[in-house]
Amino acid sequence: MLDPEALLRAMFQAAVDAADPGLAVPKVLPARPKGRVLVVGGGKASARMAQAVEQVWGPCEGLVIVPHGAGLPTQGIEIVEAAHPVPDQAGSDAAMRMLRMVEALGPGDMALCLISGGGSSLMAAPGLGLSLADKQAVNAALLASGAPISEMNVVRKHLSALKGGRLAAAAHPAMVMTLTISDVPGDDLSVIASGPTVPDDSTVEDAREIIARYGLSLPPTVAEFLGTEGAETPKRTHPVFAMAETHLIAAPQASLLAAAEVARAAGVTPLILGDAIEGEAAEVGRVMAGIAAGAARHGTPARPPVALISGGETTVTVREAAGKGGRNSEFLLGFALKALPGIWGIACDTDGRDGSEHNAGAIWVPRVAANARTVDGKAYLKAHDAYSFFEATDGLVMTGPTHTNVNDFRAILVL
Amino acid sequence: MLDPEALLRAMFQAAVDAADPGLAVPKVLPARPKGRVLVVGGGKASARMAQAVEQVWGPCEGLVIVPHGAGLPTQGIEIVEAAHPVPDQAGSDAAMRMLRMVEALGPGDMALCLISGGGSSLMAAPGLGLSLADKQAVNAALLASGAPISEMNVVRKHLSALKGGRLAAAAHPAMVMTLTISDVPGDDLSVIASGPTVPDDSTVEDAREIIARYGLSLPPTVAEFLGTEGAETPKRTHPVFAMAETHLIAAPQASLLAAAEVARAAGVTPLILGDAIEGEAAEVGRVMAGIAAGAARHGTPARPPVALISGGETTVTVREAAGKGGRNSEFLLGFALKALPGIWGIACDTDGRDGSEHNAGAIWVPRVAANARTVDGKAYLKAHDAYSFFEATDGLVMTGPTHTNVNDFRAILVL
Repeated sequence: MLDPEALLRAMFQAAVDAADPGLAVPKVLPARPKGRVLVVGGGKASARMAQAVEQVWGPCEGLVIVPHGAGLPTQGIEIVEAAHPVPDQAGSDAAMRMLRMVEALGPGDMALCLISGGGSSLMAAPGLGLSLADKQAVNAALLASGAPISEMNVVRKHLSALKGGRLAAAAHPAMVMTLTISDVPGDDLSVIASGPTVPDDSTVEDAREIIARYGLSLPPTVAEFLGTEGAETPKRTHPVFAMAETHLIAAPQASLLAAAEVARAAGVTPLILGDAIEGEAAEVGRVMAGIAAGAARHGTPARPPVALISGGETTVTVREAAGKGGRNSEFLLGFALKALPGIWGIACDTDGRDGSEHNAGAIWVPRVAANARTVDGKAYLKAHDAYSFFEATDGLVMTGPTHTNVNDFRAILVL
Repeated sequence: MLDPEALLRAMFQAAVDAADPGLAVPKVLPARPKGRVLVVGGGKASARMAQAVEQVWGPCEGLVIVPHGAGLPTQGIEIVEAAHPVPDQAGSDAAMRMLRMVEALGPGDMALCLISGGGSSLMAAPGLGLSLADKQAVNAALLASGAPISEMNVVRKHLSALKGGRLAAAAHPAMVMTLTISDVPGDDLSVIASGPTVPDDSTVEDAREIIARYGLSLPPTVAEFLGTEGAETPKRTHPVFAMAETHLIAAPQASLLAAAEVARAAGVTPLILGDAIEGEAAEVGRVMAGIAAGAARHGTPARPPVALISGGETTVTVREAAGKGGRNSEFLLGFALKALPGIWGIACDTDGRDGSEHNAGAIWVPRVAANARTVDGKAYLKAHDAYSFFEATDGLVMTGPTHTNVNDFRAILVL
């Protein structure tokens, strides 16, 4: 007899393990180069990546920026903790120091860049003459404009000292090697942490056009900066990219495949519904409950026991005062309210933290469902208070920081 | 080379054909009984069901209620057109006449009941002493209460002259045979058209408890009615059910399977994601675009070409003034705004009418996408005006009434 809780937890653990930098970094790391090496970068997984580099190469010089609480002991590489997702001065200052460090590299040297999700706000270094306040004003205007994230990023990249390939350009004429952990659907290297070491295909003109089209009102220093030569991001023809190398060492789909293998080994047919699932969290939960109901009633798309596995990033739109929780807990509550009996699930952020609290996510299994019988789940969902719902029903999943990040993980079990 | 538009339209047509009463009724209809036969019932498919009965049995006595515009010529059976989804006096009066007709049946006679989705509001006959206005007041209070549909239906069944098995009970001691077309996930016969010919497991006490729990303020006549003996619905032990027979002659899943066969014959792997997909229409569209993206990028859950097929009923929550359209058009617009290039789709109501206008739904194929390049789809979606979006881009699907109803049909094609 399958224990749904044990299986769901094992599937999540497999997804996290598959993205563990401690295992992934050594697989791609070359022999330590003869010249000077600087280890730099930032993101939720970057401290563990730095540790793994030193486990292979021994103590290194360098600087890596991670979120508060995600630091780890290293031998030589400095780990700076900074604010996420809203940038702070600590991250900005460290990012500027990082740039100065790589600028000192010469021919035959190497910048080893450790990039992962979250790096964009952790390494928020404003372009020359801009302040962090300027960048925050731009961000607020962009968020209010309704512009799609791709257009916001065009503007952001052109106001940064580091994004859109500038970190790589700063390291020229050193060789730049990048190890990347993806947290975005499609694994686009120019999107992960805003692509600090890959060429940027957008231009200052594009950024100006977007600012004009949405009628963004921006600080005068920003318009001024966009008129300077330094505003343009490095393009594919920049000489640094002729000998730059990038390795994607972990990605959402690989973690979903690892979880699928755990299900298969337990005799459960895995069905990966994609690493790119978006949408309002509770609504996505309802859809998953619907697909699961089809499997339970009709044996389509697969006959039970079946596991529906997915990744990506849902959103929570708060219309009234919000309670505690994150998108994974809210997804799971939306799912649980619609799931037929005998259908179970887990939803966690692979970085170990789902939204406002310190849980990775939540789990819906027989003992939680039993606890939930006298709890008004609909009221908790309406208040966007999924954390409290799963706290009350003992359904929270707590892992602490996992030191990696391949976005969300969800698995639904139809037994 | 596959033509996505031809394939998607053929899949939808197959889904409708699989639910065509003209084909399904003759398969289960027995020889015409010797005694008196009355053909009664109601719903979106019931006129076509009545026609099919007369094609086999010849002219019959009886009365069937269908929505305005869904009538068809019959030989002897009277077809009454009434309002849907909000009941009107025409439907209510016809339902009372239907009851009087079946009450006149005796031993050896048969009531052949033709039941399909929509029948509940079309045959809205208030219980003894209640008016249509009373029932409308109850409905308004229920809708405002936030009670789940299952609890609303417990109350409704106990205030009706016809629902919850009462039509069958009225026909006693005649034999009752029911032919049903399901438009609900799970195909629960007591839910389809509120189960006028199947025993009701809920009681007057349940109805009273629900009214009290939600603090519903109801007309005094309603409370009075619930105190009378006639308020209780017929239970499984009622003698009429000892020789009642019900045949489910068409259902959503069977239509999805028929569409899947069309895809398979075209060399496209079909994946049925269930007949029970619920959720906010545009959000469900985003989820489908995400699943399709996974198939396109990673070949999971299946390698392209693949068709993601689903049914069920999404909802559209209108927060501001709404434009034209229905849930299928809105689903498809939500999908189209997120779909990667080379991913196409169709979403239609199998009854041939999607919401406020006279289209069955919409289609997203290369020529529509080309037309959409200069159209601001996001603005149309925000205004809940998906009809106008697909009108502007020539993506409307028009079928006219199909005379059947197995709820929504959606297919996404990843080529």
